[in-house]
Amino acid sequence: MSRTNVDQLVETIARRVEAEIERQLGRVPQPSDLAPCATCKVGVHCEPKRVVGAVNAGAKRIGVEGLLEAAPCGHLAPLIDHTILKPEATKEELRKVCDEARRFGFATVCVNSANVRFVAACLEGSGVKAIAVVGFPLGAATPSAKAFETREAIRNGAQEIDMVINIGALKSRDLAEAFADIKAVVEAAGRVPVKVILETSKLDHDEKVMACTLSKAAGAAFVKTSTGFGGGGATPEDVALMRKVVGDDIGVKASGGIRTTEDAEKVLAAGASRIGASSSVEIVRCAKPDPKAKAAPKGY
Amino acid sequence: MSRTNVDQLVETIARRVEAEIERQLGRVPQPSDLAPCATCKVGVHCEPKRVVGAVNAGAKRIGVEGLLEAAPCGHLAPLIDHTILKPEATKEELRKVCDEARRFGFATVCVNSANVRFVAACLEGSGVKAIAVVGFPLGAATPSAKAFETREAIRNGAQEIDMVINIGALKSRDLAEAFADIKAVVEAAGRVPVKVILETSKLDHDEKVMACTLSKAAGAAFVKTSTGFGGGGATPEDVALMRKVVGDDIGVKASGGIRTTEDAEKVLAAGASRIGASSSVEIVRCAKPDPKAKAAPKGY
Repeated sequence: MSRTNVDQLVETIARRVEAEIERQLGRVPQPSDLAPCATCKVGVHCEPKRVVGAVNAGAKRIGVEGLLEAAPCGHLAPLIDHTILKPEATKEELRKVCDEARRFGFATVCVNSANVRFVAACLEGSGVKAIAVVGFPLGAATPSAKAFETREAIRNGAQEIDMVINIGALKSRDLAEAFADIKAVVEAAGRVPVKVILETSKLDHDEKVMACTLSKAAGAAFVKTSTGFGGGGATPEDVALMRKVVGDDIGVKASGGIRTTEDAEKVLAAGASRIGASSSVEIVRCAKPDPKAKAAPKGY
Repeated sequence: MSRTNVDQLVETIARRVEAEIERQLGRVPQPSDLAPCATCKVGVHCEPKRVVGAVNAGAKRIGVEGLLEAAPCGHLAPLIDHTILKPEATKEELRKVCDEARRFGFATVCVNSANVRFVAACLEGSGVKAIAVVGFPLGAATPSAKAFETREAIRNGAQEIDMVINIGALKSRDLAEAFADIKAVVEAAGRVPVKVILETSKLDHDEKVMACTLSKAAGAAFVKTSTGFGGGGATPEDVALMRKVVGDDIGVKASGGIRTTEDAEKVLAAGASRIGASSSVEIVRCAKPDPKAKAAPKGY
């Protein structure tokens, strides 16, 4: 049994197991599929009998999970992937990030794949999606390892996947290999959208164009600038270039070093349709940059 | 079919496929199993008939792959894992590192798992082993993703595995989870030795002790200080602590920031039995540190 045969066998088994799961479960309902409660018109996980019962018992106000906290730049919240990727993040820190995402209405919470099951449970019923990063942050795992990580993350509740390209393959001009790597994740993800992280700080102009080209050709839903771990981050120039290459029918996510409302507005003006940030709460509060703030560390 | 059932099914399939491969192939011969050529007494991949033929034809000297280049501190070479982990490494750079490992007799070449097949092919017949890093550098993939990456890396030619612990689980005091994560890789690796990277710069004293304890209990062959991507690196103090906790019957690998012969000798004196370095050639050449050298970047 050759190596290639083993890889094919593993892929075949994985596809059949997944098909069987889909067959047995039917399509799993997503939070965005759920209609608001017919009684209170707001919550998606309300229990109408209990709402009516409480009103009949004299309640004047009922707390409904899902009401958002007003913030001066709150219009940015639905564009933000609220992100916590440091490897030493504790359950308590992950829970805090999920609570913030519910309060301010961020689009998603973006975490390492080991934390997806915990975060998906924290976010249940909120409409905030969980993102798993895959092959993160070096992008230097094999296509089948990235595909395995993707499938498991989706089983664990991830509703979007942010993968890192094989930068070395791109630099070696092994473009079929770089393409197959993205394609393996897109196929493993099925209907779940995949963002492809280019790590722009490591690429020259032409390599950025090549990476965008391969990503769109492989069926990515977004191209994304940076991991935040590779030195450098999203620049308006890179975002504009990426938008120019991929056109208007897929997304561009700007990430890495976006810490203020002004940073966010600059990359949006350049063509970004999503923002990845850890300082998301500061951004929706229109906080001014702190002139005394230390520069972000280069490493993680 | 529940999530747990799927995970168990995947594990069961993987174990059975592996057992079948082992049964069909018998044990795969390792370079270290091969005896030197009976004719030239040196090469392990010589072809005796061609050697005799060349001598009969008048050859006075025959080049034999595997002869080592003398270096003033060459006694350190068998202790060094020659390392290239930057994500933008090209095939040409990987080949150069393999050539250096053959020339100087380094123990291994340590690469990202996407590059293991290429590097194992480059090293074939040299006696230099290929190491794959797993869950690298954040350690924040799931145990089953790390196990999958491990099995595939071994199929692709890895003879040692360097994995990163789940630092967040340790910090959250989910010690059974941190243990199970290491155990999953050790079991997936079978007879292949596993080094467990603690990322000491992220841990306090007691957490270092805990991580060493879990690693040895789970069957690790080595504990290892650092990824080289997490800020900070191997210190003699950390090496001495790790050696004190694990005792003498497993290894301690010092890695991260070891750039000179003096750096190497300090961590060896503190109890290290293996060194991970990118500056391996400088180390075996007893090069003095260059006072004008730029500090290594903090990120990758």
